[in-house]
Amino acid sequence: MKKRLFTPGPTPVPEEVLLELALPVGYHRSPEAKEILGEVVRGLQYVFQTQQPVYVLTSSGTGAMEAAVTNLVAPGEKVILCTAGRWGERWRNILKAYGAEIVAVEVPYGEAVTPEQLAQALAQHRDAVAVYTTLCETSTGVGHDIAAFGQLVRDTPALLVVDGISGLAAMECRMDAWGIDVLVSGSQKALMMPPGLAYLAVSAKGWQKIEATPVRNFYFDLRRYRKALADGPDTPFTPANTLIRAQKRALERLRVEGIEQVWRRHERLAQATRAAVQALGLELFARRPSTALTVIRVPPGLDGSAVLKRLEKEYGYKWADGQDTLKGKIWRLSHMGYVDPFDVLGAIAALELVLAAAGMPVAVGHGVATFQREYAAMTTAPAL
Amino acid sequence: MKKRLFTPGPTPVPEEVLLELALPVGYHRSPEAKEILGEVVRGLQYVFQTQQPVYVLTSSGTGAMEAAVTNLVAPGEKVILCTAGRWGERWRNILKAYGAEIVAVEVPYGEAVTPEQLAQALAQHRDAVAVYTTLCETSTGVGHDIAAFGQLVRDTPALLVVDGISGLAAMECRMDAWGIDVLVSGSQKALMMPPGLAYLAVSAKGWQKIEATPVRNFYFDLRRYRKALADGPDTPFTPANTLIRAQKRALERLRVEGIEQVWRRHERLAQATRAAVQALGLELFARRPSTALTVIRVPPGLDGSAVLKRLEKEYGYKWADGQDTLKGKIWRLSHMGYVDPFDVLGAIAALELVLAAAGMPVAVGHGVATFQREYAAMTTAPAL
Repeated sequence: MKKRLFTPGPTPVPEEVLLELALPVGYHRSPEAKEILGEVVRGLQYVFQTQQPVYVLTSSGTGAMEAAVTNLVAPGEKVILCTAGRWGERWRNILKAYGAEIVAVEVPYGEAVTPEQLAQALAQHRDAVAVYTTLCETSTGVGHDIAAFGQLVRDTPALLVVDGISGLAAMECRMDAWGIDVLVSGSQKALMMPPGLAYLAVSAKGWQKIEATPVRNFYFDLRRYRKALADGPDTPFTPANTLIRAQKRALERLRVEGIEQVWRRHERLAQATRAAVQALGLELFARRPSTALTVIRVPPGLDGSAVLKRLEKEYGYKWADGQDTLKGKIWRLSHMGYVDPFDVLGAIAALELVLAAAGMPVAVGHGVATFQREYAAMTTAPAL
Repeated sequence: MKKRLFTPGPTPVPEEVLLELALPVGYHRSPEAKEILGEVVRGLQYVFQTQQPVYVLTSSGTGAMEAAVTNLVAPGEKVILCTAGRWGERWRNILKAYGAEIVAVEVPYGEAVTPEQLAQALAQHRDAVAVYTTLCETSTGVGHDIAAFGQLVRDTPALLVVDGISGLAAMECRMDAWGIDVLVSGSQKALMMPPGLAYLAVSAKGWQKIEATPVRNFYFDLRRYRKALADGPDTPFTPANTLIRAQKRALERLRVEGIEQVWRRHERLAQATRAAVQALGLELFARRPSTALTVIRVPPGLDGSAVLKRLEKEYGYKWADGQDTLKGKIWRLSHMGYVDPFDVLGAIAALELVLAAAGMPVAVGHGVATFQREYAAMTTAPAL
């Protein structure tokens, strides 16, 4: 049976990128390695939509999130945390570990923090040094209005720090234009790579705060990355250099397609998926859905986890279950990265078959037809 | 021109391991992923020669070194640092960043810290909580007598913490039998993998100290790795799962060859290389040479860096230059990992040709013949 990966990370990797990983390993301090790193940084600047250098860390995305905390916030300093799920919780746990005073703006799972809520928190906490939030909350499928958050934060002394690990290149996100001060991402989502690399860029305002904050770390000390990149381009520690070489390939794909077309493709996939899901009588879980993934509420009376197991066992489709308290209550379908409409079509077809077999009143083919029609209707729509 | 990598990390990766990296990416929380991680941990336990679990970190080796500092040493606590080069300096810089009080036992580049020096330091500093040192100091080619260090440290309250990033599986090293409390390694040396993963194991004595030390970190908090491995086997953060799958393959090779035979192979390669180098009238740089690499002192009057450039440009052989103050003064040839005698033979042949072309009084072929003879003589010698 063919296996098809629809988890919101890791995501499918283009074949030419995988083949790049099978080439012999080179020396990471050679002129060729520096040239490759330079090209990756330029490619990431394009994806981040920033003029700032983008630092390449060999770590999970969480490592770059930690860098975005330890370099920015001294113990006892106040931060505002806009959290809508598990990845907002990840910020909270890292901030706690570093002794930040956290003002939480928190919404129930499935909802998004609103700009009004953030405005109120900023007004009440003028001494906050930073606002931490999440572009795409993959645990619930919610996308935040980062453009609006940026409008609010840019005129305050606070920094806007965004976890874009799973949203970047799947949702519109413009670091410089939107006033994001620190943007974090990772290789294994819409950047079409295996896990292992994390990326991070810092605004001039962000660097001012870093320079005023005592260093409490070594591997995630961003000054070291800034110096190595400026002197090299290089990394301060031996990087996962075969992953960097492969990321260059994947970034070339994004450049050829064009970042606005990439956003538009994800938007189309998401809109058509939502229409299909609703045509099947299912309910979306996210009030303000991200275009990176679609999250479906499991209908009452159905064992959500059992449905996903059948999807995988009978048809090879790997969707993601809910995490922690949401386990068995939601289904998560990623359309991030190397995914096209026919991939998603198959995932919907498989879901229909499993639901029907489970005795749900589903008209097999109706979701698929809806997806097809919706996608076709949008294909001639103007680009973003 | 064929390119051949002889840098002391990264090292050549077996073809079957590279091909593993080109397979489609899977979900990192699946039962299959857990099974693979479990096998990798068992393989690493064999290589570490330990009964303790080995934790898999997605980072450079430096990340695991940081974990071995931040989890073990509270600010102001005293540690003894046995340093013989640049990688001992790496320990020093991390220890400094975490506020340790450092008692340095330091020797000039090319020499090894002796057990007598360590014994003296332990006698003078009975309040030291740990001894940090390096198995193989790749910056100078020196190997430390870790077995003797272990004898000295095991009866004190201090922990023995060893950077085995480049020595492990290239030199005899027995974590449990030698009394090593924390052993750190990385994927890209004798473990025959690209960079991107770091490994770390902790003794029961080490865990006692960790539990008494305040947590100051998140990504490198070893308690998280211990819990995830015990509950899973799993990792606390999204790991570089394609690298883990490939490491499984490389570990299988080590298992089939047998770790004592692997050590013996490196010893043979090192001894034959040393004999060849000396037959060419060249001098070894390391007084107590490691079997992981051979470091040669550049003869007076010769531009060492220019020789290495010619080796690479004319013959495709990539040796490593000295770093920092040793640049141009030494040549470093790795025989770590996926390297056999015919690989090293070629590297020596190329050096002879370049030296002769540079006007050195070298009998071309003499080093190669010596290598061949020495290696053959040892082939029938009993294994370790």
